Amino acid sequence: MSEEELDARHAEKMRKKKAARDKIMATKTIEKGLLIVHTGKGKGKSTAGFGMVFRSLGHGHKVAVVQFVKGRIETGERMALDRFSDLVTIKRMGEGFTWETQDRQRDIAAARQAWEAAKDLIRSREYRLVLLDELNIVLRYDYLPIEEVVEFFKTEKPEDVHVIVTGRNAKDELIEIADLVTEMEQVKHPFRSGVKPQEGIEF
Amino acid sequence: MSEEELDARHAEKMRKKKAARDKIMATKTIEKGLLIVHTGKGKGKSTAGFGMVFRSLGHGHKVAVVQFVKGRIETGERMALDRFSDLVTIKRMGEGFTWETQDRQRDIAAARQAWEAAKDLIRSREYRLVLLDELNIVLRYDYLPIEEVVEFFKTEKPEDVHVIVTGRNAKDELIEIADLVTEMEQVKHPFRSGVKPQEGIEF
Repeated sequence: MSEEELDARHAEKMRKKKAARDKIMATKTIEKGLLIVHTGKGKGKSTAGFGMVFRSLGHGHKVAVVQFVKGRIETGERMALDRFSDLVTIKRMGEGFTWETQDRQRDIAAARQAWEAAKDLIRSREYRLVLLDELNIVLRYDYLPIEEVVEFFKTEKPEDVHVIVTGRNAKDELIEIADLVTEMEQVKHPFRSGVKPQEGIEF
Repeated sequence: MSEEELDARHAEKMRKKKAARDKIMATKTIEKGLLIVHTGKGKGKSTAGFGMVFRSLGHGHKVAVVQFVKGRIETGERMALDRFSDLVTIKRMGEGFTWETQDRQRDIAAARQAWEAAKDLIRSREYRLVLLDELNIVLRYDYLPIEEVVEFFKTEKPEDVHVIVTGRNAKDELIEIADLVTEMEQVKHPFRSGVKPQEGIEF
């Protein structure tokens, strides 16, 4: 096939794709606060959550972040959020869940405290987006009853508030009621070849 | 089992997990600029890329972003990046690839121009992190030869520069040489229930 023929065929194909896409998008008319879940074993769950946080901040929206696991809001993110201190509220809960303590009762209390704060932030309708970073971890260990969390999202989350929940092993009950669920799958990881966590990449 | 027994068992389990994790992390000693690929059909590929950009900016690193597809750097991200104008360089290439034009020769020229800019930014070593947003799209349509791109990463990317490549359908040749590959898999998408793209979420 000549370059000209290739170009013509391409133009026709793209025309069709665009027409199909325009037709689909025309049916999308509902605006609503989404319940978004980032799960899976791969990287990028919290990172994409924070990407949405920054996108929202860029629009001038108010955003809240609740950290369910100690130290999960990494230095880089914290320092970047500092430039938006007019718009962002961060709750770091007690010590949060951590591999370091092995104290189950303290972890349960911290999870409860974080969840109460999360509910207040979501209910307040002051924030267009609320990121519940690593909530899936505390749900996985049953530090919070999944039924209670699902019930809250179903009955109390205001229609115009977006909520993002991150962490591996998202519970089926949460996936069931979510609007948007992405699974981050690990294809290749540099730790396997001895590379250590690096500034700006892991933290 | 009583609560006390549960707590004790948990403490023991966590102690073991932590010991195993500490042992693994002690073997991770290499620091190097990574080639990172975010691919798959799910959401979050570019969003996680920008999340890393903001994390790096938070650390005060200089960052460059090259946009291979028109309009892919969305309003929210652009406005958020504006708060870091001292640290960030953005290249939007010509019109970039777009569903709107159906002009293959123009798209090829735009891809070439973007790639040349990307190489200069990476080679300069001025930037700790360079995001090549949606490069996979132009590779998929063979607007740039994959061999040339792979050869550049293998021989010319400085050791201390991180590069992130996003876009679905990453080529096998790219995955082969990458250090960190995550596949974003779509589990559930709100467009399916008629929800339209919303400010702060899709753009």
